[in-house]
Amino acid sequence: MATSTPHQENLTSSNASYASTFTQGHLALPPAKKYAVLTCMDARIDPAAAFGISLGDAHVIRNAGASARDALRSLIISQQLLGTQEILLVKHTGCGMLTFKDEDAVGLVKKNLGEGGIKAVQQGFREEFLTFPDLENAVRSDVEWLNQNKGIPDGLVVSGWVYEVETGKVRRVI
Amino acid sequence: MATSTPHQENLTSSNASYASTFTQGHLALPPAKKYAVLTCMDARIDPAAAFGISLGDAHVIRNAGASARDALRSLIISQQLLGTQEILLVKHTGCGMLTFKDEDAVGLVKKNLGEGGIKAVQQGFREEFLTFPDLENAVRSDVEWLNQNKGIPDGLVVSGWVYEVETGKVRRVI
Repeated sequence: MATSTPHQENLTSSNASYASTFTQGHLALPPAKKYAVLTCMDARIDPAAAFGISLGDAHVIRNAGASARDALRSLIISQQLLGTQEILLVKHTGCGMLTFKDEDAVGLVKKNLGEGGIKAVQQGFREEFLTFPDLENAVRSDVEWLNQNKGIPDGLVVSGWVYEVETGKVRRVI
Repeated sequence: MATSTPHQENLTSSNASYASTFTQGHLALPPAKKYAVLTCMDARIDPAAAFGISLGDAHVIRNAGASARDALRSLIISQQLLGTQEILLVKHTGCGMLTFKDEDAVGLVKKNLGEGGIKAVQQGFREEFLTFPDLENAVRSDVEWLNQNKGIPDGLVVSGWVYEVETGKVRRVI
């Protein structure tokens, strides 16, 4: 095993402190409040604090851009195997997926990692980086895509929101 | 817009309280500490608290089982577009992906959603639910898969960990 990096040391020491006062070992596998939150991996979002999620209450799925397509496997598992019945989809201002275009991402990967990198991308996720040009439209279109997806039960409630990284506020879009 | 559900109301009211004392609106898009944490969507994990991640420091990617394959798009974006240089991959005890098998998941989707559901699953992610029978081996094999993936730069540091939902403790696997 390699020597610890500063981030690995931070994980170990922060966690030792967390575990020393941990009292939630009894929580069950299925989310107690039967809902899932889908949001972005962005470093400026703390879903538990900003969206009021207590430990054990909800699945939290995070990927680049809070993409519904990218999250489909997790969403289906969340509902079909673990009983969630509602999705809160939260994209955010200042998102990297708004800043970049697919062709920029493809160009960078080709420049930095060569054709092998592009091939790995294609094998992994079909060469789409799922960037989007307009925030509110992206929220609406992801919610509509989920509502029409046959892998998502008809009774499931899906709402779409925007989180503002500048103010810490969420607002509902759909 | 539909009437608010209790989860939507909780999001709105919790967030109003969060935003009222929010002071971090100046944070930049790229993670300040240049690393990404990949962990599970499980409701019993609070990565910020349990893994010592301050707001703005790291990307947090979450999916069912902390699957590296499922996270590939986000990981490549994290590194190629937003400058992260290290991945902490954290799977956990009691994971749903340990509890279920792919054929169980496929069977349930077929039963609940019919052939249309299975077709949607296939279009979304090729019919694999990415369950795994052994926790430590799954951590190792995901780290190795990332290390060999041509979409991930050679210099990137990847370590693999297990979080115990019973104790709140993390331990390093690889």
